[in-house]
Amino acid sequence: MSKVDGKVDGKVDIEISEVGPRDGLQSIATVMPTEDKKRWIAALASAGLQEIEVGSFVPPKLLPQLADTAEIVRYAIGIGGLRVAVLVPNLRGASDALAAGAHKLTIPLSVSETHSLKNLRKTHTQVLEEVRGIRALLDALPPDQRPQLEGSLSTCFGCTLEGPVSEDAVVRLGGQLLDAGCDEIGLSDTTGYGNPVQVRRVLRKVWNALGRDSLNGIHLHNTRGQGLANVLAAVEEGVTTVDASMGGIGGCPFAPGASGNIVTEDLVFLLEAMGYRTGVDFERLLSARAVLAAALPGEPLYGFLPEAGLPRGFELAGERAAEPV
Amino acid sequence: MSKVDGKVDGKVDIEISEVGPRDGLQSIATVMPTEDKKRWIAALASAGLQEIEVGSFVPPKLLPQLADTAEIVRYAIGIGGLRVAVLVPNLRGASDALAAGAHKLTIPLSVSETHSLKNLRKTHTQVLEEVRGIRALLDALPPDQRPQLEGSLSTCFGCTLEGPVSEDAVVRLGGQLLDAGCDEIGLSDTTGYGNPVQVRRVLRKVWNALGRDSLNGIHLHNTRGQGLANVLAAVEEGVTTVDASMGGIGGCPFAPGASGNIVTEDLVFLLEAMGYRTGVDFERLLSARAVLAAALPGEPLYGFLPEAGLPRGFELAGERAAEPV
Repeated sequence: MSKVDGKVDGKVDIEISEVGPRDGLQSIATVMPTEDKKRWIAALASAGLQEIEVGSFVPPKLLPQLADTAEIVRYAIGIGGLRVAVLVPNLRGASDALAAGAHKLTIPLSVSETHSLKNLRKTHTQVLEEVRGIRALLDALPPDQRPQLEGSLSTCFGCTLEGPVSEDAVVRLGGQLLDAGCDEIGLSDTTGYGNPVQVRRVLRKVWNALGRDSLNGIHLHNTRGQGLANVLAAVEEGVTTVDASMGGIGGCPFAPGASGNIVTEDLVFLLEAMGYRTGVDFERLLSARAVLAAALPGEPLYGFLPEAGLPRGFELAGERAAEPV
Repeated sequence: MSKVDGKVDGKVDIEISEVGPRDGLQSIATVMPTEDKKRWIAALASAGLQEIEVGSFVPPKLLPQLADTAEIVRYAIGIGGLRVAVLVPNLRGASDALAAGAHKLTIPLSVSETHSLKNLRKTHTQVLEEVRGIRALLDALPPDQRPQLEGSLSTCFGCTLEGPVSEDAVVRLGGQLLDAGCDEIGLSDTTGYGNPVQVRRVLRKVWNALGRDSLNGIHLHNTRGQGLANVLAAVEEGVTTVDASMGGIGGCPFAPGASGNIVTEDLVFLLEAMGYRTGVDFERLLSARAVLAAALPGEPLYGFLPEAGLPRGFELAGERAAEPV
């Protein structure tokens, strides 16, 4: 499929945002060599993934695995049609991300303030202050050079430290992120506590309160095996971007017991089987998995589809005779 | 929860039919000792599972793992409130099942005739003839002593040998099973090919053609990681009985590449989290898993919930303040 300026050309129904190079690698003790990262990211893009979160602008002392993020961003923006996303914890990180040329910045805000203090060492007020600073930085750029700014609400469906999380707080903090200057917000099930009924309910609450354009994407975990069921609920509600990680690597290292991102390979199968076009080519996706496996010797990679293979006679959504989804 | 005569007392929204002792054990080379099976089945029932498929009346030469099915049935019917189900491939198996005292007989009919010939060595016509014979056998009993007879349509969502399977054939063969004397039919994704859109569509077709009471249960696989997403679709459509296997053991040994039942432990979590009462107690369920693990040393057991544990502050569906599902 063709893409222009990192934008989907309309031939994709659900976009998968690959977070393995950031969320995955930050959870693994091994530091993947920069050249291996480049090979892996190129292979992911070649498989048709339109958005890749390639790193995080946090102090290298905290996450040495992502110390080469600036170099990775500079490399990745040279890949045609790829939207290069990075995580930034604060204004300083955003400034570094701008200098490197990232297309999209994501700043996390944990709905559980206990988790926020543990993860970013910041209160809600302090995170919102960073967002306002980043907005001012972006607004100083010409409009066509401004990266997209997403506020990612973590621990939306519960917290390993606080337990249940108020859905009203999710909506309130989402509104505050937008007011502070985020272009959109995302929901994240950081702890793998979410269930499909809750996913549907929270999405509706957010859209009702903040408008349909406020939120397009969701980051779900597979910690209790419920990841793809939650994806189904989210997609049926109208979410159009779903985060996933090749081989299911990663999770949140600050949420004890939480592990297991949604496996990109299995997600692509689920969506394509349902008739949603993802733009992803399976053969190339499995080649990218081989690149990852070679670069992380000894690390377990998850996923069912890579073991089982595609069903006999399987056709991608875009290849089929017209059939209602 | 209390149960009367093996029937759910209305305090359960979704019933889980545990198929591990049959579907699971038949796929594992190790023969579990009879006394271990009894301990495991007792532990499963004690955890609140209302229906257990405890074995299969096939020739011991074919499945030595299930050679003690008659003894297991005689033991299991002594457990109060448990519905004891068995698989029967033919009239002779049904006769043995009746002699042992099973509460429910399931006869499989593969929608893919190629698979039927490979699995049961019978054409569709021959299987339907067996069903008529079983019906006659049951009708000779006093009404209150007749076990329930279910026709299970396998390869409903695709076949590893034939590829795509006609949905009209699913409906047609389902009708023929009912006409031949089955009390109800079930759908089975033997090969792990199904997706949620297809699950919804096939269920609606069956119910539209054969009536709402024709089908209550579904047997889904997790071969490509899509098991619980398919469960979500089925339950939202109105299915009230879902098959699963403790530790995810089993699959269909005659469908190459197919493996991986839905994991009971993860399914219970998903359903209870969504607000559906299953009647299952988690602590006792994990105790039953320990019994299984001890009886199958060296065999891998699957499942996320047993590793991750319940979310902080988690409440079973029946324990919560009223909240809409």
